[in-house]
Amino acid sequence: MHRQETDDRTAAGPTGEPHRDPFGWLDAQAERRRAAGLVRTLRPRTADSGLLDLASNDYLGLALHPEVTDGAAAAAHRWGGGATGSRLVTGTTALHTELERELAEFCGFEAALVLSSGYAANLAAVTALGPHGGLIVSDAGNHASLIDGCRLARATTSVVAHADPDAARKALDGHEGPAVAVTDAVFSVDGDAAPLPEFAAACRESGAALLLDDAHGLGVLGDGGRGSAHAAGLAGAPDVVATLTLSKSLGSQGGAVLGPAGVIEHLVNTARTFIFDTGLAPAATGAALAALRLIRREPQRAARAREVASALHTQLTAAGLTTVRPDAAVVSVHAPTPDEAVRWAADCRAAGLVVGCFRPPSVPDGISRLRLTARADLTDAQLTDAVRTIVRTAPAGAFQG
Amino acid sequence: MHRQETDDRTAAGPTGEPHRDPFGWLDAQAERRRAAGLVRTLRPRTADSGLLDLASNDYLGLALHPEVTDGAAAAAHRWGGGATGSRLVTGTTALHTELERELAEFCGFEAALVLSSGYAANLAAVTALGPHGGLIVSDAGNHASLIDGCRLARATTSVVAHADPDAARKALDGHEGPAVAVTDAVFSVDGDAAPLPEFAAACRESGAALLLDDAHGLGVLGDGGRGSAHAAGLAGAPDVVATLTLSKSLGSQGGAVLGPAGVIEHLVNTARTFIFDTGLAPAATGAALAALRLIRREPQRAARAREVASALHTQLTAAGLTTVRPDAAVVSVHAPTPDEAVRWAADCRAAGLVVGCFRPPSVPDGISRLRLTARADLTDAQLTDAVRTIVRTAPAGAFQG
Ligand SMILES: Cc1ncc(COP(=O)(O)O)c(C=O)c1O
Ligand SMILES: Cc1ncc(COP(=O)(O)O)c(C=O)c1O
Repeated sequence: MHRQETDDRTAAGPTGEPHRDPFGWLDAQAERRRAAGLVRTLRPRTADSGLLDLASNDYLGLALHPEVTDGAAAAAHRWGGGATGSRLVTGTTALHTELERELAEFCGFEAALVLSSGYAANLAAVTALGPHGGLIVSDAGNHASLIDGCRLARATTSVVAHADPDAARKALDGHEGPAVAVTDAVFSVDGDAAPLPEFAAACRESGAALLLDDAHGLGVLGDGGRGSAHAAGLAGAPDVVATLTLSKSLGSQGGAVLGPAGVIEHLVNTARTFIFDTGLAPAATGAALAALRLIRREPQRAARAREVASALHTQLTAAGLTTVRPDAAVVSVHAPTPDEAVRWAADCRAAGLVVGCFRPPSVPDGISRLRLTARADLTDAQLTDAVRTIVRTAPAGAFQG
Repeated sequence: MHRQETDDRTAAGPTGEPHRDPFGWLDAQAERRRAAGLVRTLRPRTADSGLLDLASNDYLGLALHPEVTDGAAAAAHRWGGGATGSRLVTGTTALHTELERELAEFCGFEAALVLSSGYAANLAAVTALGPHGGLIVSDAGNHASLIDGCRLARATTSVVAHADPDAARKALDGHEGPAVAVTDAVFSVDGDAAPLPEFAAACRESGAALLLDDAHGLGVLGDGGRGSAHAAGLAGAPDVVATLTLSKSLGSQGGAVLGPAGVIEHLVNTARTFIFDTGLAPAATGAALAALRLIRREPQRAARAREVASALHTQLTAAGLTTVRPDAAVVSVHAPTPDEAVRWAADCRAAGLVVGCFRPPSVPDGISRLRLTARADLTDAQLTDAVRTIVRTAPAGAFQG
């Protein structure tokens, strides 16, 4: 039990014992989780485990790249451990402005705004583009942060079927006020890409904006990793806004919103997760900037990440496993049951391989899966090894009939 | 104008021009801001401006402390530029666990959970403690992140008058399901402290929990900076949860929730801004940990921050300015009008002093003010200088009759 009913720290409080346990209602939920085998626990990693990592979102293998960690360290030394205030007070350093300019330029947008996380960037973008009287059309498979953005926005939200531009078109049809269609560009669980050109066409028919979350596309898709909007010919379009995270391909932390300068100005003036949040730490800003410059210099990293994903898919499919064809760097392998998925992931780990394991309620369709990420820095030998381990430890029911 | 109507990048898009401008509705808002003189713009700072900073939230002057910046740099080098995944996948390093243990211990709580920002920590705590059928009683002066948490939570929210435990008591009375009263421990605009013992008593009468946001209390209030809950004898109580930010006194970035282990377990399993967000960057984690250890070793820093705040208040009041008596390290000085507040802050800056300037809509009561932060590392000479500048540049209407 988590409570200590006779905890004498309580007695030290000035106002006596509570007359009932205000957290008693949590016990039943905890019990349900335990009964269902769905308890989540934190497993701290060590810096030198020797395990092969196919679970992180470090798609380009940059988080530990010396240029990136040096970028973090130099920024901390020069600018401090934190930004010291909100972006509108003391929290904007020249480094933030530099990162914003280079991000916008790299991805092909007019302007960019950096926030403390991709989550905060999505909350900012969705609430700013979904005002009172507005309409948000949201893909059913969207990330939690986009969904929370819809819930915080004053606009009405219409949730439409996954990856279905026609459904978006119908939902947008006839709306008079501000309207925006919102979708992950690459969905985080299965790694499937949204049909962006079709979404953009649907938006344009009704004069709606398109907001795409490119958390998993930046660094992987588009020319040299310029992202999904660039790949779809939508970068810099006057009706398109993209959000990014700095925490995946760029190996850092933070998020950004890219779009027309007027949209960014609107965010600066109205977005609560921008205005009332401390600026991104200098170290994260510096790491992201170093990673961005590295990607510009080494555009082949993006192609290599896609190549590794494709190889993983081909080899696992050839072995008889149900593997979703990857559109970016995420490869998803279906497991027969949640318990078997957990056991499978544990057996991989015991064999030296870390894979992601997604179970209900984190999966939209109830299908548990291993989630593998195709890092650009994996060697062919590591790839072969990883595939061998995954196949060897697979539950019998994972193989197609 | 923000749009380039004949932007040829659009023509490069696959699906033609939008038939109406989906962001046209932003123009009227931008125009209203301009007409009201309320346009917010980002002003990047340089690393060596030579200005005296009384605007940041770096209350203990630790953001640039070598132990803190070395902590950031060492963590980045050892663990990488980013955490590489959500806390439940690859984003928990041994460093995160260490910080959580030491934060809980220092502040006197059973357990702690670190998130990517104080904003995210507040969203997590409020939504986790405000389930369907529950009641959240929220102080009218609460921070934006607590308000957004209330809006995301499934519970009903009742907003009560500022700093009014009786109002909270009435709002809680008779509610049967889970209930929680939520308040900033120190309010960010005026630096006034909430009457926590009275709030806790009101909660206990009706079996409600108390959730307090100690963003501005940690490092400043309580024994050696252990925070507002500790100061009120509420740390570790089985019915109290506190949120923190690592971005103010600790000179870093990030946030935390402190409370009974069962509450923390509940957050790990249900809080969306924890589960679906990349873990805090190692550099920020390392900086916060270094700052925490420094504060333990140098407990006089907290007292010095309070002493500086008190001196600022005394000297500015003696000069005839309307200054709110500080409960922590924030000192607020009233300005006659928004325009004069802006002009006042600009004159201070021209004289080498950076102060915060809060105007509608960021102030609850329509009164514009300068917001000064009392850093522990200010010398008495800097203090005297700062007061002299503020008084010399004050608009005539700022002096009491
Ligand atoms: C699709 C998507 N959007 C947004 C986010 C949030 O980004 P961050 O972790 O930087 O907050 C994530 C993952 O964390 C994601 O997968
Ligand atoms: C009272 C209060 N709570 C929460 C926050 C958010 O913390 P963070 O900036 O770490 O997101 C702030 C300020 O930023 C604050 O003033």
